[in-house]
Amino acid sequence: MYRTHNNGDLRLNHVAQNVVLSGWVQKIRNKGFMIWVDLRDRYGVTQLMFDADRSTKQTMEAASKLGREFVIQVAGQVIERESKNPQLPTGDIEILVETLTILNSALTPPFTIEDQTDGGEDLRMKYRYLDIRRKPVRDNLVFRHKVSMTVRNYLSGQSFIEVETPYLIKSTPEGARDFVVPSRMNSGQFYALPQSPQTFKQLLMVGGMDKYFQIVKCFRDEDLRADRQPEFTQIDCEMAFVTQEDILQTFEGLTRHLLKEIRGLDVAEFPRMTYDEAMERYGNDKPDIRFGMEFATLNSRAQHRNFGVFDQAELIVGIAVPGGNAFSRKEIDQLIDWVKRPQVGAMGMVYCRCQEDGSFKSSVDKFFDQEDLSSWAELTQAKTGDLICVLSGQTDKVRAQLSALRMELAERLGLRHANEFAPLWVVDFPLLEWDEDSQRYHAMHHPFTAPKPGQLALLETDPGAVKANAYDLVLNGNEIGGGSIRIHDKGTQSKMFDYLGFTPEEAQAQFGFLMEAFQFGAPPHGGIAFGLDRLVAILGGQETIRDFIAFPKNNAGRDVMIDAPAPIDNDQLSELNLRLDLKP
Amino acid sequence: MYRTHNNGDLRLNHVAQNVVLSGWVQKIRNKGFMIWVDLRDRYGVTQLMFDADRSTKQTMEAASKLGREFVIQVAGQVIERESKNPQLPTGDIEILVETLTILNSALTPPFTIEDQTDGGEDLRMKYRYLDIRRKPVRDNLVFRHKVSMTVRNYLSGQSFIEVETPYLIKSTPEGARDFVVPSRMNSGQFYALPQSPQTFKQLLMVGGMDKYFQIVKCFRDEDLRADRQPEFTQIDCEMAFVTQEDILQTFEGLTRHLLKEIRGLDVAEFPRMTYDEAMERYGNDKPDIRFGMEFATLNSRAQHRNFGVFDQAELIVGIAVPGGNAFSRKEIDQLIDWVKRPQVGAMGMVYCRCQEDGSFKSSVDKFFDQEDLSSWAELTQAKTGDLICVLSGQTDKVRAQLSALRMELAERLGLRHANEFAPLWVVDFPLLEWDEDSQRYHAMHHPFTAPKPGQLALLETDPGAVKANAYDLVLNGNEIGGGSIRIHDKGTQSKMFDYLGFTPEEAQAQFGFLMEAFQFGAPPHGGIAFGLDRLVAILGGQETIRDFIAFPKNNAGRDVMIDAPAPIDNDQLSELNLRLDLKP
Repeated sequence: MYRTHNNGDLRLNHVAQNVVLSGWVQKIRNKGFMIWVDLRDRYGVTQLMFDADRSTKQTMEAASKLGREFVIQVAGQVIERESKNPQLPTGDIEILVETLTILNSALTPPFTIEDQTDGGEDLRMKYRYLDIRRKPVRDNLVFRHKVSMTVRNYLSGQSFIEVETPYLIKSTPEGARDFVVPSRMNSGQFYALPQSPQTFKQLLMVGGMDKYFQIVKCFRDEDLRADRQPEFTQIDCEMAFVTQEDILQTFEGLTRHLLKEIRGLDVAEFPRMTYDEAMERYGNDKPDIRFGMEFATLNSRAQHRNFGVFDQAELIVGIAVPGGNAFSRKEIDQLIDWVKRPQVGAMGMVYCRCQEDGSFKSSVDKFFDQEDLSSWAELTQAKTGDLICVLSGQTDKVRAQLSALRMELAERLGLRHANEFAPLWVVDFPLLEWDEDSQRYHAMHHPFTAPKPGQLALLETDPGAVKANAYDLVLNGNEIGGGSIRIHDKGTQSKMFDYLGFTPEEAQAQFGFLMEAFQFGAPPHGGIAFGLDRLVAILGGQETIRDFIAFPKNNAGRDVMIDAPAPIDNDQLSELNLRLDLKP
Repeated sequence: MYRTHNNGDLRLNHVAQNVVLSGWVQKIRNKGFMIWVDLRDRYGVTQLMFDADRSTKQTMEAASKLGREFVIQVAGQVIERESKNPQLPTGDIEILVETLTILNSALTPPFTIEDQTDGGEDLRMKYRYLDIRRKPVRDNLVFRHKVSMTVRNYLSGQSFIEVETPYLIKSTPEGARDFVVPSRMNSGQFYALPQSPQTFKQLLMVGGMDKYFQIVKCFRDEDLRADRQPEFTQIDCEMAFVTQEDILQTFEGLTRHLLKEIRGLDVAEFPRMTYDEAMERYGNDKPDIRFGMEFATLNSRAQHRNFGVFDQAELIVGIAVPGGNAFSRKEIDQLIDWVKRPQVGAMGMVYCRCQEDGSFKSSVDKFFDQEDLSSWAELTQAKTGDLICVLSGQTDKVRAQLSALRMELAERLGLRHANEFAPLWVVDFPLLEWDEDSQRYHAMHHPFTAPKPGQLALLETDPGAVKANAYDLVLNGNEIGGGSIRIHDKGTQSKMFDYLGFTPEEAQAQFGFLMEAFQFGAPPHGGIAFGLDRLVAILGGQETIRDFIAFPKNNAGRDVMIDAPAPIDNDQLSELNLRLDLKP
């Protein structure tokens, strides 16, 4: 037995008890005749006291040789502290140490094990096991566990069954790139790691399982952008005999339960918005609605005033930045530079100050009079003291640009409150989206998504207009979940594959089992998948998913702690009937 | 909304209610003027009634065209049945159908969707989604979910934190063969899929996480034996600041809780047995102790009687088969043939009948008198009416042979009661085991297992005698969990790698991160891992793990439903800088 209590346990009512504690040396103060040590474990910190008058010489000597992060065990008596520390749950007591055992020594760690560490990202990832000793990181992992358990118990209570689907499946070139796994027993053949259990959960519906969920790792071999991981965790869910409404209600219930259990918040019915409306009002299909700055279309009040830039624009759209009139000329110039950065890509920005005296002062006063500018203020709902920012150009691009500006301004103005939660359903997504690279339509959600009833015919005439019963759950400007009602008959699924450019042979080779399954009595079904990493981060009031993953990979897909991936033996390659074919 | 109730819901108190049900057509009885349909879903079966007098002509016509496994929705009234079915929870009522909607038609399934199906294993696996519609398979999956949830909630309640460890890790040639995953972004390098999260859970202990668990998929590229899967699920656990006793207590608590929650059984303290004792008493390190037939060493009463076979044997060992005197001569000859099969490998078997009159009749009466045979009976605790079976030879081999015979006899005699549960801790496993192939010692558990305190020196003089604080939890003759106290200092770990034949460079390349971690204050720690697939099967009173896996692979590692693994595109290979190198 290494301990009778943990280091977060002891209080005044334990005084005079003999206890045994174990943990890491957090801090040492050595006054020679008295030595204080802060002993740390997962549960807290307890102060140890070594007193030359009351401890043996041997114990004092051992204590004087302790270093940071040594692992020790002590036995001693709980005593009341003379100077209490109200910041610490155990701050009323300390341990008068009788015996000290050094369980393991420690080299000086490469960064400080403190809430605010001096270690940079790279060093922390290389020594992630030391990073995890820090309270903020440990708390994040415990928090993640709590969220996962809450999800599981809630769904389980709603008759959902967690079913484990296989990790060694089949590669399908549709969508992102698969990670593949060579099969030794089936020469020249490969498994793929799942990008999601999509087809398996649909087969479970065909199998009558009715309400399925799984918290499951998924894999995507993509060129990593910041804060993307090659392996990530989904809360994957599917239901049979349901309409879209049933699914929205069920998972709104889950999300509301999480907000209540995890954050103590009561959230009313989630607002809903169509995809088209979200794009029009926020230029974005995952709007952060914790704050305003809604888009206003200004075409009618901004064109035909001889301002060529606007006259040639498909869309002229503005937002009212609250209190933005306080921005200096220099600050506004910086904003203009910001939207002109290649990452945003605007050609420029028109602005209009809503001055304290009720007048307007714009960067285009040459073309627009006070009446025009007043109507801009009206449409953007700008008030005195605000700044109207206006972008123009091709609709899709200008929306994306203004949406980026809106988020940037909200960030700068502190409008994205970490402890405020604004969920939103975005519904009626388009079935297809145009892909510039391949010059054809792709499935926006995935090729199993059903078009809205009666819209199948539109595929031939106006594919971009076909809507699906597809929906996203958005929380604070992040898509935390997305799903759809699925196709459940072979005819429609074949048509869809055909439309998406699969030859009948390709469709058969990759998804023949699913289409075959549809012939044996597939029920209507649909589902949703949540990104657990992001959900946990956002519930934790943060946005960096890496902080909520125990052993994340870096942007090159490497685990710098274990140094993976790594070369393998030629014997291993040969057993797999593979040869490296490195390009120079 | 597709249904107001499910097909297991309705009782007499629902009579006269209008309900909507959905599901699959299980059975149809068509009397022309009356049609009865059994409607099935995950929750049960409800009888539907179509009545020419009370249903519309259109509905009758539609009903008459239904086939097995059609997916339908009906609206109608709950009425009391004239002839009730007490076998069925909903057997008191039926639905007088008003409207019938066919949601999907179905081809005739390739096997019957009944508890006892006519489908063979191969067919059932190819159409696993239809197999899952059968109650026994569905019940197994629901049962598995219940076990997993119970494990998670119990451990979570004991302050364990479930931490997700990575799936894309580094290949280590030690142990079984890894599945590897080529990295596109790191040319010529590979990830490996984890055989277990062993090193990561140890790093979590170094990181202060203290009590970790994870229900996690693991992967082993082995030549598959019957009922082995290339991917399998572990309940992986680790604790810091614990002794072996703490771990045994904790996981005995978990197992007792499972037996109570899942099977309603109260089980007293689990017996414990050393590895040496288990081998001596049962010839096996995972003895089934639901029944007796313990081994008795007969050397002192069987040698020096001029029976050459025994005189030359290292070990002569017998068991008393209860009631075995009833076996006919032919049955005994069959048993002898059974032990002589190559899978068992005995040279022969001596037997002795304990006859009703108290006398003994053996196959070696020429060499042994009644007094000798009486002493065999005493040592094996054979009673009147039993049969003593005796094998002899080299100790390890003869133990394995007699253990196989003991299990076979228990099976034949019906002593392995599916609803009886006899857990057992086997402790003090050897640290090393001799490997005939490589002619050297290997780690019996894994290279991270600590030798018992003070036994490290024995490694040089008598390696086979070194014991470890390593333990298995055995349930009904199956190892359901195994673990050990780990090494937690760099020096011992280096010595162990050295001893196991790693060069310092290999040890550094493969496990350098772990040994480095040990230098920064590693706490004493240990853990255990349970095989969830087997645990669930045994708790379910069965032994075939495949029946408790939603989508299992066959013995060639293939998923015959989705037809994986499969060839991949040359483009995919080329992106991975690989070329096939198929041997003719």
